[in-house]
Amino acid sequence: MPAHPQLDSQGNLKHLLTTEGLPRRLIEQVLETADQFVSIGEREVKKVPLLRGKSVFNLFFENSTRTRTTFEIAAKRLSADVINLNIGASSTSKGESLLDTIDNLAAMDADMFVVRHHSSGAPYLIAQHVKPGVAVVNAGDGRHAHPTQGLLDMYTIRHYKKDFTRLTVAIVGDVLHSRVARSQIHALTTLGVPEVRVIGPRTLLPADVERLGVKVFHDMKRGLEGADVVVMLRLQNERMNGPLLPSAQEFFKTYGLTADKLARAKPDAIVMHPGPMNRGVEIDSPIADGTQSVILPQVTFGIAVRMAVMSLLGAGGRHE
Amino acid sequence: MPAHPQLDSQGNLKHLLTTEGLPRRLIEQVLETADQFVSIGEREVKKVPLLRGKSVFNLFFENSTRTRTTFEIAAKRLSADVINLNIGASSTSKGESLLDTIDNLAAMDADMFVVRHHSSGAPYLIAQHVKPGVAVVNAGDGRHAHPTQGLLDMYTIRHYKKDFTRLTVAIVGDVLHSRVARSQIHALTTLGVPEVRVIGPRTLLPADVERLGVKVFHDMKRGLEGADVVVMLRLQNERMNGPLLPSAQEFFKTYGLTADKLARAKPDAIVMHPGPMNRGVEIDSPIADGTQSVILPQVTFGIAVRMAVMSLLGAGGRHE
Amino acid sequence: MPAHPQLDSQGNLKHLLTTEGLPRRLIEQVLETADQFVSIGEREVKKVPLLRGKSVFNLFFENSTRTRTTFEIAAKRLSADVINLNIGASSTSKGESLLDTIDNLAAMDADMFVVRHHSSGAPYLIAQHVKPGVAVVNAGDGRHAHPTQGLLDMYTIRHYKKDFTRLTVAIVGDVLHSRVARSQIHALTTLGVPEVRVIGPRTLLPADVERLGVKVFHDMKRGLEGADVVVMLRLQNERMNGPLLPSAQEFFKTYGLTADKLARAKPDAIVMHPGPMNRGVEIDSPIADGTQSVILPQVTFGIAVRMAVMSLLGAGGRHE
Repeated sequence: MPAHPQLDSQGNLKHLLTTEGLPRRLIEQVLETADQFVSIGEREVKKVPLLRGKSVFNLFFENSTRTRTTFEIAAKRLSADVINLNIGASSTSKGESLLDTIDNLAAMDADMFVVRHHSSGAPYLIAQHVKPGVAVVNAGDGRHAHPTQGLLDMYTIRHYKKDFTRLTVAIVGDVLHSRVARSQIHALTTLGVPEVRVIGPRTLLPADVERLGVKVFHDMKRGLEGADVVVMLRLQNERMNGPLLPSAQEFFKTYGLTADKLARAKPDAIVMHPGPMNRGVEIDSPIADGTQSVILPQVTFGIAVRMAVMSLLGAGGRHE
Repeated sequence: MPAHPQLDSQGNLKHLLTTEGLPRRLIEQVLETADQFVSIGEREVKKVPLLRGKSVFNLFFENSTRTRTTFEIAAKRLSADVINLNIGASSTSKGESLLDTIDNLAAMDADMFVVRHHSSGAPYLIAQHVKPGVAVVNAGDGRHAHPTQGLLDMYTIRHYKKDFTRLTVAIVGDVLHSRVARSQIHALTTLGVPEVRVIGPRTLLPADVERLGVKVFHDMKRGLEGADVVVMLRLQNERMNGPLLPSAQEFFKTYGLTADKLARAKPDAIVMHPGPMNRGVEIDSPIADGTQSVILPQVTFGIAVRMAVMSLLGAGGRHE
Repeated sequence: MPAHPQLDSQGNLKHLLTTEGLPRRLIEQVLETADQFVSIGEREVKKVPLLRGKSVFNLFFENSTRTRTTFEIAAKRLSADVINLNIGASSTSKGESLLDTIDNLAAMDADMFVVRHHSSGAPYLIAQHVKPGVAVVNAGDGRHAHPTQGLLDMYTIRHYKKDFTRLTVAIVGDVLHSRVARSQIHALTTLGVPEVRVIGPRTLLPADVERLGVKVFHDMKRGLEGADVVVMLRLQNERMNGPLLPSAQEFFKTYGLTADKLARAKPDAIVMHPGPMNRGVEIDSPIADGTQSVILPQVTFGIAVRMAVMSLLGAGGRHE
């Protein structure tokens, strides 16, 4: 694997695979480009012709209507032609290999693949395989990365907090299984956030998580102390009542975000969640809908950030 | 619930939830607007830019390819961006609540939700929840209402019979479970139809159906006597051979529309059906395909009526 | 059935149902029209407005994401509105007949139906049923025909070999169940290919295949001797280990394309496959990816050929 599989020889973004090692200037370029697209969502006519005539394939090997929809909207607002493929249900069931599927779609003159896959690394494999000029966007691979979610979270934090270099950000919950958490941590440290904390039970934190540059807390109240940003993670249904956890109720008691616990953070702390939320499990409903919650703005900014990523990747065209 | 949840303070349509209580001038506005769109379906280029750049979400919590397709075509011919979401298969399976799903989609700058839901009232809940400028169209909720079907039926009747105020309209079959019948009855009485009849076995008519302003018949021949319009309802598969009915064959014998029974109606009576038909159950094939049948024109007018509704709801934009 | 159900009274294409009996000038017209579209796939903006405002329905009664995708892309690049309908999962499950489904969609002012159906002849039935001006494209019906695949294969052969009248073409594998093989054979003989061979075990060749104008070989090496074009067919999963064949391994040994066997063909022979491939069953991986393989160009040309067919069928409009 090349050192920077997502950058071209001039250091420009050619794929978006991960926020790990993504240079600060490129993250900032995405955030600045997204600024322009935020206003488009508010217009009467929400379309720009930047990707007109381009073919964007949403390749979802793992079902996620919500994420697929955000990319579909983003691509359509850029005037691209969008093809949705739920690959689990098609060619691979005919025994075709992942790369044969990609080769075939690429031969249809695809310009961009948005890929969600249950296996970590699948988007890398695809990115290395496609010809120059075809872009790959990782829309979530296994436990590894979900870079557009990480970037939209950075956009949201910047929107509310302006300066990353004075912040304390606490990420709470099932960090172990969370590609979202990993993408956030890499982006936060790159952007110069001085203190990133992870909070959760030992069973839901990676063994070597400190190596990512974070502080570990098992006591949520201590972990939230003085935080500017509180990021709650989704507890996957399949973990609840599983061997790693006593029960959803028990989890809520210890690691669910309540007014009581949130009071330990700064008074102007913002509350984030990548969605979909389990109300009453990782977050109390009054907090989810409260004045500190920026969960819905995250979604709105998410469209703009995805438009930014797609327009940066697609602008060059396939023949440069 | 407000007295007129589908009207704004100036009495204009802001959602389309039901034909019950929908003022006559608004029904007529829809029908007149649809006139313009009927001709568009016959053109070489069947598109108008009225909803260009608008995002229309087809939210189908209950599967209906046929109805979803009519709204998809209507929206595309208005140049909207259309996102189809089969919600049964996605977020709600992740345990997300209906309103969280709506909030999320609304945060993606949706302009319109077309909602089909197995629960009566779900589109009302959504309409009350969304922010001003976002429109909700009920595409069928439980047994309650299917207003675009009711309006396209009014368009069809007006097309063939011109004057509502001299008509006898007979609605035949499973009125009890039919949201279509309810939407037709409200629209017909509002438009001044002097005699609306419902015909069916006791087990398939609501107990208090006369309160809707209709006459009840259990004998189909007597009920069709002198009718100008005969509306056959679909007998749901799940009712056939169920406890409410002896058998599909028996139903056909008593309440299926045959030449023999239709002869009791006026010679120029039209025959309608919302589709899909059960030939040989509620309607005999020669009648379905006969000269009095306007079942396929109903479909064609249905696209125009849905374009009319969507353009009336979407024209104002979200920032008025 | 009329003698030429796919031609109008002036001998122009009004549907594309089969390559059998399709006049040479019409095949050549498709190939020449496709030439223009090949270059469109390479452009920055891959759209032309030829079908703007037309409604194309992809009616797939049999699941095939790959084929459906090629038609969807082709239609979108022609600027049509595309509606995808997986009919297996919708109306027919409500007991509606095929022709009622078609009537309903046609009443929505459809301009073109792209039909895949598990029953041979279904697209003919539809073509005979729709009103003048509505076009039907057969996207594969039972074992009968897959004419756009046949035509894209002709395009591919012409691209690499120029002159059909000097070629030896060998088609290898499960000819018995292959609609692709049938469509290829008819097109090849019409275009004047002097020698078309079929190669396979007795159990996988139709009893009277010679009547199609082909030579039969059971020994693959003899059959490939001096061939200019080698077309490998997909071995359907359901055949493997079935009563007609000993095993996939055994099949590969006798009829799988290996370097060893390919050496019998001309040194500049091209290798084709309609996809998706079973690597190690009908074709060895090094051959599939080798210098003689034109399998991916087939896919690229396939989009252009489908654009050509759709533009020829749609250009006249519904009111001519």
